[in-house]
Amino acid sequence: MKGKKADIFQNILRNSSSPWMDGSGNLGNVAISSRVRLARNLEDVPFPHLLSGKDADLVLKKVFQTVGRVGERGFGGPIIQTSLSDISPLDCQVLVEKHLISPQHAVSKTGKGLVLRYDESVAIMVNEEDHLRLQVLRSGLELDEAWVLASGIDDLCEQGLDYAYDEQIGYLTSCPTNAGTGLRASVMVHLPALAVANEISRVLTAVNKVGLVVRGLYGEGTEGQGNVFQISNQITLGQTEKEIIENLSLVVKQVVSEEIRVRETLFKNHRIEVEDRVFRALGLLSNARKITSDEAIKLWSDLRLGAEFHMIPGLTISDVNEILVLSRPNYVQKVFETTLTAQERDIRRADLIRKHLSSKGV
Amino acid sequence: MKGKKADIFQNILRNSSSPWMDGSGNLGNVAISSRVRLARNLEDVPFPHLLSGKDADLVLKKVFQTVGRVGERGFGGPIIQTSLSDISPLDCQVLVEKHLISPQHAVSKTGKGLVLRYDESVAIMVNEEDHLRLQVLRSGLELDEAWVLASGIDDLCEQGLDYAYDEQIGYLTSCPTNAGTGLRASVMVHLPALAVANEISRVLTAVNKVGLVVRGLYGEGTEGQGNVFQISNQITLGQTEKEIIENLSLVVKQVVSEEIRVRETLFKNHRIEVEDRVFRALGLLSNARKITSDEAIKLWSDLRLGAEFHMIPGLTISDVNEILVLSRPNYVQKVFETTLTAQERDIRRADLIRKHLSSKGV
Repeated sequence: MKGKKADIFQNILRNSSSPWMDGSGNLGNVAISSRVRLARNLEDVPFPHLLSGKDADLVLKKVFQTVGRVGERGFGGPIIQTSLSDISPLDCQVLVEKHLISPQHAVSKTGKGLVLRYDESVAIMVNEEDHLRLQVLRSGLELDEAWVLASGIDDLCEQGLDYAYDEQIGYLTSCPTNAGTGLRASVMVHLPALAVANEISRVLTAVNKVGLVVRGLYGEGTEGQGNVFQISNQITLGQTEKEIIENLSLVVKQVVSEEIRVRETLFKNHRIEVEDRVFRALGLLSNARKITSDEAIKLWSDLRLGAEFHMIPGLTISDVNEILVLSRPNYVQKVFETTLTAQERDIRRADLIRKHLSSKGV
Repeated sequence: MKGKKADIFQNILRNSSSPWMDGSGNLGNVAISSRVRLARNLEDVPFPHLLSGKDADLVLKKVFQTVGRVGERGFGGPIIQTSLSDISPLDCQVLVEKHLISPQHAVSKTGKGLVLRYDESVAIMVNEEDHLRLQVLRSGLELDEAWVLASGIDDLCEQGLDYAYDEQIGYLTSCPTNAGTGLRASVMVHLPALAVANEISRVLTAVNKVGLVVRGLYGEGTEGQGNVFQISNQITLGQTEKEIIENLSLVVKQVVSEEIRVRETLFKNHRIEVEDRVFRALGLLSNARKITSDEAIKLWSDLRLGAEFHMIPGLTISDVNEILVLSRPNYVQKVFETTLTAQERDIRRADLIRKHLSSKGV
């Protein structure tokens, strides 16, 4: 990447406000974002982990050509295509932090690629676990809309690519757990009230019982961080895409309504305690001179609850969500374009968050 | 008390900024205030704990007459005289919190009185443990100045009162530990850096070894609260007033220079950590919706360190010291003129502190 495209790409990396985290969309005061991901592979080509470097490059070339033909019109907005080997390790890590590529995709970059819509709402990882992993992100509980766009892009790509498909099974994938629809849909929800009321495990156990999986804000092992949970389907086979999406939407709606019910009780019976928590978070985030990523995410959760309740004049959910991006270790280094120690990052992170809040007048 | 005097007295009670806590005076960035107290008793009158109610009233009357003659000129400013039985229990407690009378003086009010200079810098408790307990308060390390004023008022009072005095012992007092000079001098110092550096006990042990006593911000049992320590003389007999004052001043100066030495090291080697602590305190105090007295005093200490370092534009040591007064349980009830539960006090206290800081533009 050179010239204007490179500048655009750098701007995307440095951008802390992604449209898919702007608090809009259905049930946006609880549902942070919806994600639909499709796994696809090329017919008669070994899966990526069995591919030679040369063959991987051929897959990359073929996908890029097709994507180029699908173009801005097909993707619903301008896109950038790049080989991961053209991206610095730091930039790769920022893409991971921004949920645009998987951590695995960033590990070894040979023969790997990325297609990215400027607004970060559509991305295709090329030669990750499958030849193509297309994801569409939307703010709020908008699985249907995400699915419609993903499906449309998928159809257009299929015009230029022969997908590995079995009449009985459906789409074939590197890992059998993705075979069939190749669809993984997930919704990120913010559940601070259920957490305060100690009802999280009850609700999540119920979610697991209906065959859905719960992960944390940054995947497995981060459960509960910032009171954010990703709920997704486990089964990709034996159900239609429509069924998967509908089932997940239904369950998420139930979780959201439980959260809202507890929030209303909290607000009614413990308003001062909630306000105290929210404004203490605001006071710390807008004054601290050093802050760890963990503390920032914890305070982010309290502040977001305040924005969800419209407690802080002038501060939108979108403004608050930016703090999540500003808090990430690699993002901080990206902004200052330098390698920083953990201690230095804590200082710069505090600076970024303080300036951000100050720019919003709070 | 009625009319204008009553209004003035109420204003004094509600005033959160006392001149003797305005951060001025010698070494005012460490030494909060200096206090000189003289214990005096009337000749041929039993000590207060042996006095009948009628005799106590006679003492009160006699002292008030004399004080009236000493007047504004003698006291260096306008004064108010009142019997404690004319003061509500809440107002008495506010006087205690403002260090203007002792907790014991507020317990039973019969036959007890108070003389108070409007600016709170001079007070006489009548019929506390002794017939007269005269105190002079000054901001900073100003023991000499406090002594000169106390001694001057004492001399003028002596013109109208026969003090119990023994040529061998000196002034006679209810408790023998006060006999001789009847003088207790004390300095309140703020030692946050020594506390952080874990050097408090070393320094205070040294202070004890030279015959001085260390108490907390609100007397015995509050040691270390807000990193404030009161250092005072124990011996009142066998030394002249000048010696007592000079000795105490000398030791306090040493303590202050130790504190300043550690502050400089802190500032040089851990500036960000200090700033972080100061600004987090500011963030919490200016945003919390409920706060206990204990937490407020803890944060006050951090904020005061910031003011001592001139870290917060527009916020003076005097502004910060007001938070100490605003934090006290009875003061909070006084401002709202109502009895409050602990929970209600925490909310009103947070309101008072927030409005105070906001009025200072921080």
